Amino acid sequence: MTSRRFPEASAVSVGGFVRDDTPTHEIDRREAVLESLAGTVRELIDATIRTTVDDDEVHRVREDVAALVARLRADQLPGPAGVRYNGEVRVWNWGNAVVGAANAVAPPLRVVQTPAGCHADLVLGAAYEGPPGLVHGGVSAMLLDHIMGVTASAMRRTTFTGTLTTRYRRGTPLGPLRLEASIVREEGRKVFVAGSISDADGVTVEADGVFIQPAGMGDAPRE
Amino acid sequence: MTSRRFPEASAVSVGGFVRDDTPTHEIDRREAVLESLAGTVRELIDATIRTTVDDDEVHRVREDVAALVARLRADQLPGPAGVRYNGEVRVWNWGNAVVGAANAVAPPLRVVQTPAGCHADLVLGAAYEGPPGLVHGGVSAMLLDHIMGVTASAMRRTTFTGTLTTRYRRGTPLGPLRLEASIVREEGRKVFVAGSISDADGVTVEADGVFIQPAGMGDAPRE
Repeated sequence: MTSRRFPEASAVSVGGFVRDDTPTHEIDRREAVLESLAGTVRELIDATIRTTVDDDEVHRVREDVAALVARLRADQLPGPAGVRYNGEVRVWNWGNAVVGAANAVAPPLRVVQTPAGCHADLVLGAAYEGPPGLVHGGVSAMLLDHIMGVTASAMRRTTFTGTLTTRYRRGTPLGPLRLEASIVREEGRKVFVAGSISDADGVTVEADGVFIQPAGMGDAPRE
Repeated sequence: MTSRRFPEASAVSVGGFVRDDTPTHEIDRREAVLESLAGTVRELIDATIRTTVDDDEVHRVREDVAALVARLRADQLPGPAGVRYNGEVRVWNWGNAVVGAANAVAPPLRVVQTPAGCHADLVLGAAYEGPPGLVHGGVSAMLLDHIMGVTASAMRRTTFTGTLTTRYRRGTPLGPLRLEASIVREEGRKVFVAGSISDADGVTVEADGVFIQPAGMGDAPRE
């Protein structure tokens, strides 16, 4: 259980998900504020990788970054952000490594859900490089795991990744990409999902995943 | 081909890897400078996720971050960092998503190579969360892809991920973790690798990978 300055609401934890009665409009407002900061921190990550300014200037910038860290840490959560939800079933996971609004490590992925499955368009820059000019193979696996998990968890059920198999057809170039995923079939608590990453010339990476609904957690937290 | 203020050396590209004759001692010095900045940016990522300071202060910090971005961008590479090497076979990939010294997205992973395989100890914090308090399954896949690729690429050969299968035994808690990987067998240009992630209580995630040496690229760039 964590105590926090924002929001002020009382909170209880169920299976790690925390019930938090902050009104949705306040969550929306705060999310936009943190998302704006995370977007600029994402720029700082890119600039840190690509900068060629001299060593002294890098050191001075580092000192200034440290001062900003101290200002943000003046009041903070004692640990990770976790996943919270309120009585209106507004769910927020601002720290999520792939989609978290406050997480500058996340590209972030914006997943669009349709009856046929899920897709997401995104642009990957210098921070996601593996081989020269190409997306790191592990980043591709990470993104596929996420969108396939969201696909498996459609209709508010909760699933966890059981097995994920990723096949690399060719290098995935940094730049604009599309992710797609859809449910192939279901067997009891198992959901079989297929996914892919494509650039303008077609599929670069394919994946198959088995996602599992934990016994007794068929549904996501709700009122 | 990119032009850059640092290093000043001429550079030629072979298979995406860039020959760059900056002396090793200059590379070591610059790497330490950028690594220091990236470490503090990593703190800023964590603080952005966990901060509970009021909206106005977040906005002010964001403006200050934007000013630092502009200072770093005063002189920068035109694109991603790529992978460079010099005549002493010092290789540097400062932008790499998993191990890049200048990349605050990277945990970073410090891979230790032994005759028996590779391992790495690391601590994952708030930026790598998926389910509440647990490492994002995609992050686990990303880290395994990397350490298993390094294992397959031992003895300076170059390999790319062909297929990676990740099996999740239980949730991986945020905190101290160990990654391990070793070669299982080889067939022609294919290298079969096994890997795992463990916490203090044992294995949480297992993986099998097939890594492939591209025809005509049996060796990493060298003199």
